[in-house]
Amino acid sequence: MALFKGNREYFTGVNEIKFEGLESDNPLAFKFYNPTKIIRGKSMKEHLRFAVAYWHSFCGTGADPFGGGTRTFPWEQNNETKMDAMTTAMNKLDAAFEFFSKLSVPYYCFHDRDISPEAETLKDSINNLEKITGEAKLRQKETGIKLLWGTANLFSHPRFMNGAATNPEFKILASGASQVKAAIDATVELEGENYVFWGGREGYGSLLNTDMALERENMARFLSMARDYGRKAGFKGTFLIEPKPMEPTKHQYDFDAATVIGFLKEYDLHRDFKLNIEANHATLAGHSFTHELQVCADANMLGSIDANRGDAQNGWDTDQFPVDIYQTVEAMMVVLNAGGLGSGGLNFDAKLRRNSTDTEDLFIAHIGGMDAFARGLEVADSLLNSNVFSTIKSNRYSSYKIGDGLKFTKGELDFEQLATIALKEKTFPLVSGRQELLENIINQYLFR
Amino acid sequence: MALFKGNREYFTGVNEIKFEGLESDNPLAFKFYNPTKIIRGKSMKEHLRFAVAYWHSFCGTGADPFGGGTRTFPWEQNNETKMDAMTTAMNKLDAAFEFFSKLSVPYYCFHDRDISPEAETLKDSINNLEKITGEAKLRQKETGIKLLWGTANLFSHPRFMNGAATNPEFKILASGASQVKAAIDATVELEGENYVFWGGREGYGSLLNTDMALERENMARFLSMARDYGRKAGFKGTFLIEPKPMEPTKHQYDFDAATVIGFLKEYDLHRDFKLNIEANHATLAGHSFTHELQVCADANMLGSIDANRGDAQNGWDTDQFPVDIYQTVEAMMVVLNAGGLGSGGLNFDAKLRRNSTDTEDLFIAHIGGMDAFARGLEVADSLLNSNVFSTIKSNRYSSYKIGDGLKFTKGELDFEQLATIALKEKTFPLVSGRQELLENIINQYLFR
Amino acid sequence: MALFKGNREYFTGVNEIKFEGLESDNPLAFKFYNPTKIIRGKSMKEHLRFAVAYWHSFCGTGADPFGGGTRTFPWEQNNETKMDAMTTAMNKLDAAFEFFSKLSVPYYCFHDRDISPEAETLKDSINNLEKITGEAKLRQKETGIKLLWGTANLFSHPRFMNGAATNPEFKILASGASQVKAAIDATVELEGENYVFWGGREGYGSLLNTDMALERENMARFLSMARDYGRKAGFKGTFLIEPKPMEPTKHQYDFDAATVIGFLKEYDLHRDFKLNIEANHATLAGHSFTHELQVCADANMLGSIDANRGDAQNGWDTDQFPVDIYQTVEAMMVVLNAGGLGSGGLNFDAKLRRNSTDTEDLFIAHIGGMDAFARGLEVADSLLNSNVFSTIKSNRYSSYKIGDGLKFTKGELDFEQLATIALKEKTFPLVSGRQELLENIINQYLFR
Amino acid sequence: MALFKGNREYFTGVNEIKFEGLESDNPLAFKFYNPTKIIRGKSMKEHLRFAVAYWHSFCGTGADPFGGGTRTFPWEQNNETKMDAMTTAMNKLDAAFEFFSKLSVPYYCFHDRDISPEAETLKDSINNLEKITGEAKLRQKETGIKLLWGTANLFSHPRFMNGAATNPEFKILASGASQVKAAIDATVELEGENYVFWGGREGYGSLLNTDMALERENMARFLSMARDYGRKAGFKGTFLIEPKPMEPTKHQYDFDAATVIGFLKEYDLHRDFKLNIEANHATLAGHSFTHELQVCADANMLGSIDANRGDAQNGWDTDQFPVDIYQTVEAMMVVLNAGGLGSGGLNFDAKLRRNSTDTEDLFIAHIGGMDAFARGLEVADSLLNSNVFSTIKSNRYSSYKIGDGLKFTKGELDFEQLATIALKEKTFPLVSGRQELLENIINQYLFR
Repeated sequence: MALFKGNREYFTGVNEIKFEGLESDNPLAFKFYNPTKIIRGKSMKEHLRFAVAYWHSFCGTGADPFGGGTRTFPWEQNNETKMDAMTTAMNKLDAAFEFFSKLSVPYYCFHDRDISPEAETLKDSINNLEKITGEAKLRQKETGIKLLWGTANLFSHPRFMNGAATNPEFKILASGASQVKAAIDATVELEGENYVFWGGREGYGSLLNTDMALERENMARFLSMARDYGRKAGFKGTFLIEPKPMEPTKHQYDFDAATVIGFLKEYDLHRDFKLNIEANHATLAGHSFTHELQVCADANMLGSIDANRGDAQNGWDTDQFPVDIYQTVEAMMVVLNAGGLGSGGLNFDAKLRRNSTDTEDLFIAHIGGMDAFARGLEVADSLLNSNVFSTIKSNRYSSYKIGDGLKFTKGELDFEQLATIALKEKTFPLVSGRQELLENIINQYLFR
Repeated sequence: MALFKGNREYFTGVNEIKFEGLESDNPLAFKFYNPTKIIRGKSMKEHLRFAVAYWHSFCGTGADPFGGGTRTFPWEQNNETKMDAMTTAMNKLDAAFEFFSKLSVPYYCFHDRDISPEAETLKDSINNLEKITGEAKLRQKETGIKLLWGTANLFSHPRFMNGAATNPEFKILASGASQVKAAIDATVELEGENYVFWGGREGYGSLLNTDMALERENMARFLSMARDYGRKAGFKGTFLIEPKPMEPTKHQYDFDAATVIGFLKEYDLHRDFKLNIEANHATLAGHSFTHELQVCADANMLGSIDANRGDAQNGWDTDQFPVDIYQTVEAMMVVLNAGGLGSGGLNFDAKLRRNSTDTEDLFIAHIGGMDAFARGLEVADSLLNSNVFSTIKSNRYSSYKIGDGLKFTKGELDFEQLATIALKEKTFPLVSGRQELLENIINQYLFR
Repeated sequence: MALFKGNREYFTGVNEIKFEGLESDNPLAFKFYNPTKIIRGKSMKEHLRFAVAYWHSFCGTGADPFGGGTRTFPWEQNNETKMDAMTTAMNKLDAAFEFFSKLSVPYYCFHDRDISPEAETLKDSINNLEKITGEAKLRQKETGIKLLWGTANLFSHPRFMNGAATNPEFKILASGASQVKAAIDATVELEGENYVFWGGREGYGSLLNTDMALERENMARFLSMARDYGRKAGFKGTFLIEPKPMEPTKHQYDFDAATVIGFLKEYDLHRDFKLNIEANHATLAGHSFTHELQVCADANMLGSIDANRGDAQNGWDTDQFPVDIYQTVEAMMVVLNAGGLGSGGLNFDAKLRRNSTDTEDLFIAHIGGMDAFARGLEVADSLLNSNVFSTIKSNRYSSYKIGDGLKFTKGELDFEQLATIALKEKTFPLVSGRQELLENIINQYLFR
Repeated sequence: MALFKGNREYFTGVNEIKFEGLESDNPLAFKFYNPTKIIRGKSMKEHLRFAVAYWHSFCGTGADPFGGGTRTFPWEQNNETKMDAMTTAMNKLDAAFEFFSKLSVPYYCFHDRDISPEAETLKDSINNLEKITGEAKLRQKETGIKLLWGTANLFSHPRFMNGAATNPEFKILASGASQVKAAIDATVELEGENYVFWGGREGYGSLLNTDMALERENMARFLSMARDYGRKAGFKGTFLIEPKPMEPTKHQYDFDAATVIGFLKEYDLHRDFKLNIEANHATLAGHSFTHELQVCADANMLGSIDANRGDAQNGWDTDQFPVDIYQTVEAMMVVLNAGGLGSGGLNFDAKLRRNSTDTEDLFIAHIGGMDAFARGLEVADSLLNSNVFSTIKSNRYSSYKIGDGLKFTKGELDFEQLATIALKEKTFPLVSGRQELLENIINQYLFR
């Protein structure tokens, strides 16, 4: 992958980030992520399929509900003059590809409004998107960097204040369709491997004014129609739903993995749709990240991952960069057991802390996340290779592989027979779950 | 309904609880619950279908993880001598029916182990249950009090420490089947209107040692087989699943309504099963009570209600008696809109605070809960009669009843047509959700 | 109070809000708040001392972290032209006083940056504030509306990203002092009855980069110096700290009432400072609103109240208008027992939902909040008049009013004597806490 | 330390646990904890001062609110016969010392009721305690194992349902004093290094029936008197308060570290009392474990640590064994910076999962916890030695070490001078907090 530079170099002083290993004190080097290292016959790069999120990295100013942005981007102004929106968008695209190439990530992800500006009319906004899409295509070609997924931002514009696919006002729903159609077109044009729906405003603020049943049906209809259009337009990738329980909406319909899977099956969408699981959304929903991944893997619907983390004491989406190796080990164990990420990837839907204002910070944060998943992959691999977990689990469920237990799983017993089996027993074995042992083994493998 | 008294009167000093209205300062009288008051052509009693929970009211000693029971029940001992288990069970049955009849509730609910003692062997335990079932039947006949639902306790005995239908050890799963078969038999014998499954241990302590996919399949198979048996044994009522996200288990498979509905549909159980929604379980899962009720109502799967409440600051199941009229108003609005509780009811799965140790407290707590739902019913009725809510909601969604909006809901538009509709619009209306207005109206109707 | 109108009427179509009582269906009328109604010898207006919050009501556009504002204020633009900042500020002041007078609230509250714009330099910002202060003073005089409290916004500007009084960079701390000095000056000029500190950024994002001990000391020093300046400048009112546990900061030093009280006493600030308790901040800290009020009242440090509420399912500051009568009853019981609000008041630190976009909504929301507290006051008064609560409580603690119990409270026993007293007892009484009874009584008094 | 064996060996098949290092697959060996390894001139054993908690390890049967115990202890029965309480207590003591010595921990901790049975009367209970204390003393002498701290259980007996030191009934408060006096006597006799108060029932279930002000005063008086008695009785160690926000009580007065420190200072107890911080209690209070430790360290009141962890998804005290190295690294950084644990230690207030039923599990769980803190100590030490953290922090606050910043910290500026300083500045530097860098460095040092 060649280093990309547009008309101007935006991240001066930072060169290509290289693997230097644990002993290096260079903050701008990988300590664990060695892209070419082979694990299970595939390179780390192929396993992890990292992507950078356009919105946080190139649009996120650090603003929060209590204060304005702390970052002014060099691609937005020339000396003190603010540039017009399309010039900014073009510069930003250069900056983004420069960043991708210096970080050596193979993928990126975007919303329509991240890469191209909203205009006065929908039509003009779509034109903007088409223009930038063409430019992005050129840069993809030049660098070999690919689009992991595209999506439409159906939550920032005020017209979506009551949702898009679930808006009580039909014309606003239709405006969402316009955006989604254009975003699917852009994704097809850029050969995006997935197309994502995150319904940040699809839910309710109060049940008092909400017809939840109608809104859910409208959402299902909207998604079905979008799917049909996508297939017609040549999109061969996976459609993804990204669950989140709340925020900005009081309650979001795509609450968690189980809810979304039930919804997709109810409306016969599960053949085209999988899930994009975000760590911080999992914990906001009262689940562990691993739980949500496993629920998807069990349903064969693990599509992709938004790699970040929340703060255990804060009840909102902090979208921090993932650094907890325990979480990356467990995540990668699910992923490896599920046969890998397929057409999905690890997208850093993560943002710098508001007070991380150095240019280098954006690199450092991504390096930390990539290293955390690289180390997680290594440890997960060695745990799975050792068979220690699989043996314990296999023994634990062995009674279903023989005799009456096996018959039960095959449906060869009726309830009365089942009930009779137990009547013969005087006592029942209390077999230890050995949770503490397994937790200790994780710590052991972590360090060896 | 005649007042019941067994060999001994247990709640001396308390007579039948009567409606005395708001001006009465008698703590042992109803202030709002007037069983014969007619609302929408039905009596309050028929609307609300109150049930007393056997476990909390007659088995709950006030013990918690940090201390032993604060209540010793007169039916458990004679002077200082502790009586044997079956005598206790018989006395307790008398006490329970005395309580039901003094409180004038039409229903009760039980687990097998609440009404009859666990014996050394499963077989003896089942014999115990059968004996007590016969006695209960006599008392039902004498008093007219009916069984809202029965269930089997598959969580208290140590053998269920790793679950019952999801136990890694097949023989323990089979022992669960023995208990469920016997509990279904008892429910049929007592003409129970529903049969409930609450899977308190069906889940996991750690994913490290758990095969979640197999466990869920086993649970589905177990429920299917139990359903088949029930139907064969003459059970014509509704099977109910009661969701709870956690506690005692770290994660419970029946996390919330959406998860359970998805599960029931996946395994084709949704024709026989509905949901039993508990207020406190809803809030533990990160939902409002009303949300869980509405999710069920929209899926036509609202079976019954466990009427209680949690503490907003405590993260465990406090199972307090419901007294918040806002919650009962919202709940009864969902229930009335859904056409009533059907064969379900309002079961007080609620317990006295550990330090509520007066005999009267048990009556007072139930009176408070019954009054709260009675007042909730009245206010919900007047809100629905006023049409103020239905008009606002109907206007809010009116764009789907005409023109292109209607076509959309009928599936007469494709995505490209939908996208084109919005392109013609210059701006989109921001229609107020008027949440504050609706909240004010609730307060107005509450008091008039 | 005369209706105020500036150069232009901003809330056309809304007249003065009047008390019309429960039977009125006019959404723009009070149902419970009758300003002149006498309770305990004081008018409702004198008891409740309502204030409107300038920031939410006249600056809050409805923006949230996921989308821009849904409201454009008529005082910000003329036809399509955006007006300059000082003209906007002047218009906004007119609009605000028009709103106050139509709503008949006696008080308002502001941050420096709400009423006057931030300029390029601190000096110019202070000049802006001074100009607007003069204008506000005129309007106060004309209308009789008074300033409940003023404060400085030390969290929105990027320079405060690491805090103000706790900033690791001294010059930024000093810039906070400039703002606070000017805001105190403005508060003195406007005869504000209190001056508030809310330290939204005074805390940390990570302990890894934080010297918490130094930051707390700096905060204490800053507050002491500000207090000294305020007294010198003629401020005779109360300084208030408003606790909040987190958001925007990961951890805020003013976590809750107990933490702040401990801090104030440690640094000898408790003679000049009291607390401003916000309902939603209480619940974010894991406390009930009532708890935080009681903690302050017990320490004689209940200064004022930010009247709003959170959402039980959302873990961030939703700042909704208060409508839950249970909360207002409990709050007003604490307030009445504490002898009233003193120089404090009930400030609606509450915002419209993002999708409440009608002009009327702002009135409706405030009406709902005022009615909720008015009804709360009525019920609290009747509960306290009935003595039912005080009698139960008094009996409960009666053992400390006689004999050894009394000696204990007077310090007349040593530990060995105390230990010996109990040795004589064979058993100890289990006296019921009667929580359910008390909860039922609340419901009874609510409706009568 | 000699291996201890009483009349009978209870943990047959387990020998002394030895350090075998990371490559050993022996689950009954330490991987990181090498007691004699020297760090900063002290052995790991001296740094970490591990203690076993008598209650969880030798009294905890695995019972929870939804089911009975899963463990029957060999010291409680002989064949099938249950032994009397004092024989059991004696056997249990043997088992405990056998366990301590096989695990090579230097310390243990107990409540009065863990080591000796509650009798019919308080007096007899105290006699029981005295007898067992004598026996424990012999075993301490034989093995060299010491008592880290003793305490009295003032929460399990029903008489404490409304608290002990805060009970509304004076005689019950006095009964608490009897127990505390006896427990202090036992602690003195056993040369315990600390005496702990955990007020599990000191709080309220409802504010409606609670005089919080009186209860807090009574608690303060009780603690003062206990302290005076302790000193008189020859106790030279530290008194410790262990904060917990809730559970079993709805609200506990010792909510968190800041609350307790404020309370201790208010009542002039801070010279004799420090805090015992439990990880799981910290997280229940909405704080990180590290935060609570730092708050204590900054106040010079970090007394001791209850080493465990909670479950991020469960809202109750799960008391799991600590295995998260991130937490132990951060904890040990605070401890090392604070100059060590002093007379405190790391007490495993942690319990086996209910389904961990093998004899070995108790060893494995403790080994995991000891290894986690040992590794945490190593990493904390290397981080501190590297100066990377201290340098970054020192630079961050350097503006307070010179010029006006220094003057400010010395109190040599008044507020007007402070305010003037900033007026000269045109802009203010936005200095990056570099949180992501620091998090990456932790991961780097973790593995090298």
